[in-house]
Amino acid sequence: MNAVAQPAAVSRAAFEHAPPREVRRAIREGEWRTNTKRLALGHHQANVTIVPERHAFDFVRFCMRNPKALPLLDVTDPGDPVPCRAAPDADVRTDCGEYCLMREGKVVERVADLRSLWRPDHVAFFTGCNLSLDRAMLEAGIPLPHLVDEQAFPGQFRASIQCVPAGVFRGPLVVSLRPIRNDLLVPVIELTGRYALSHGAPVHVGDPAAIGIDDLSKVDWGRPNAIPPGHTPVFWACGITAQAAALACGIPEMITHAPGRMFVTDLVVTPSQ
Amino acid sequence: MNAVAQPAAVSRAAFEHAPPREVRRAIREGEWRTNTKRLALGHHQANVTIVPERHAFDFVRFCMRNPKALPLLDVTDPGDPVPCRAAPDADVRTDCGEYCLMREGKVVERVADLRSLWRPDHVAFFTGCNLSLDRAMLEAGIPLPHLVDEQAFPGQFRASIQCVPAGVFRGPLVVSLRPIRNDLLVPVIELTGRYALSHGAPVHVGDPAAIGIDDLSKVDWGRPNAIPPGHTPVFWACGITAQAAALACGIPEMITHAPGRMFVTDLVVTPSQ
Repeated sequence: MNAVAQPAAVSRAAFEHAPPREVRRAIREGEWRTNTKRLALGHHQANVTIVPERHAFDFVRFCMRNPKALPLLDVTDPGDPVPCRAAPDADVRTDCGEYCLMREGKVVERVADLRSLWRPDHVAFFTGCNLSLDRAMLEAGIPLPHLVDEQAFPGQFRASIQCVPAGVFRGPLVVSLRPIRNDLLVPVIELTGRYALSHGAPVHVGDPAAIGIDDLSKVDWGRPNAIPPGHTPVFWACGITAQAAALACGIPEMITHAPGRMFVTDLVVTPSQ
Repeated sequence: MNAVAQPAAVSRAAFEHAPPREVRRAIREGEWRTNTKRLALGHHQANVTIVPERHAFDFVRFCMRNPKALPLLDVTDPGDPVPCRAAPDADVRTDCGEYCLMREGKVVERVADLRSLWRPDHVAFFTGCNLSLDRAMLEAGIPLPHLVDEQAFPGQFRASIQCVPAGVFRGPLVVSLRPIRNDLLVPVIELTGRYALSHGAPVHVGDPAAIGIDDLSKVDWGRPNAIPPGHTPVFWACGITAQAAALACGIPEMITHAPGRMFVTDLVVTPSQ
């Protein structure tokens, strides 16, 4: 996940309560070089999906039909790199730490900046992310591994659940695993269910095999998490579903943020959005 | 609003608690011939907006940027008349009581059925409607005029507030007026604010002139409502905003439901959707 090492002098704590604009600046200027967990706490972090305009209407329907995985926060005009609702002074070409370029269903390159790749027919979609709930989780005293351990990050898996297709887009639902202490299961389900724009309530609780996941150590994205005694594996719909669809359907081009290195928006997270 | 008189034998009460499918059947077969207020109580009623595929991605962004007026419930695939999320056994070409055909910014025809006009490039959008809250209002004991008087219906006005444009779409926000008893103002604002997919909280309370409405008797759509003593005019964003945009921007073609004669979906109204 860390193409370039994070300078040791720059601590995550310095950016936890920074405004989103300041976090984007640090990312854009290469000062912040790793994942965005716990940054600008209380603001929506977004998955970025960029497709040519000819696939944009298909993709927006794919999002609307799979709203737990791909809750829409903003969509740009073709060729305009500015998300006018989510962060009107930002630029999607520079404000993620790293991007994945996919062609014909394969990841062909990871780049730090999209300015040389951006075209007038590019449309950028911003969809919700579980990291947006870091503040709500911290305030509720839910000790998720990625919140208490700097090295930890959720793992993501292709589930056996299929998305509802739209136009060229189809593929598996990608889920994100968080081990939850058994006495916190109900509060966590209740809490996350209030945040529909950040994937809402889990899609599955318990036996991973029931949704086609045979080995929790073999993540498709992110990092493996052990399930400690007295904990239950809980799975939420995940925005990487968009990338899995690009890989599954082999569309000629899709550009996304690199997993874990989200676009930090100005949108404040509130329940029931 | 009533192109063909409603048969006297068919009462609104008979359809208030009917399932949406039964209401759509009665509309499709010409048995129900007037507005859809109080029908299939507790289910989303939808504004229908049909545009050619070449304008569909512009329109979806227009909806997303003006979510109080145009909260998206469903979008069809090009050429497919079935709203797969909102009512998978319905047909948008037959299941509204009447439709308006607009060309080059003018209403050119009202028709009872779209089967002869439907093309493979047509895309239908379904957006939320205030009538979806009739049940919540009745249960809360809010005596809105259209709920207690068979002849009454909300009036709609072009406000001086402009929508956020997207592609070819621009135009005024259309608002819907309901006179609210002063002691019910807070409960009504609080209640409607919980239903984002049905326009949410009001956009304006009080003096109509503040949003550019000089004469409450001159409605742009719907029927005038007097403001009785001890009542306040309250304005909500309204789905007719889509029709106003077609008139303002003069796009070559848009087809909509006729005002007041909504598409009744299977979607259950719940707070905070």
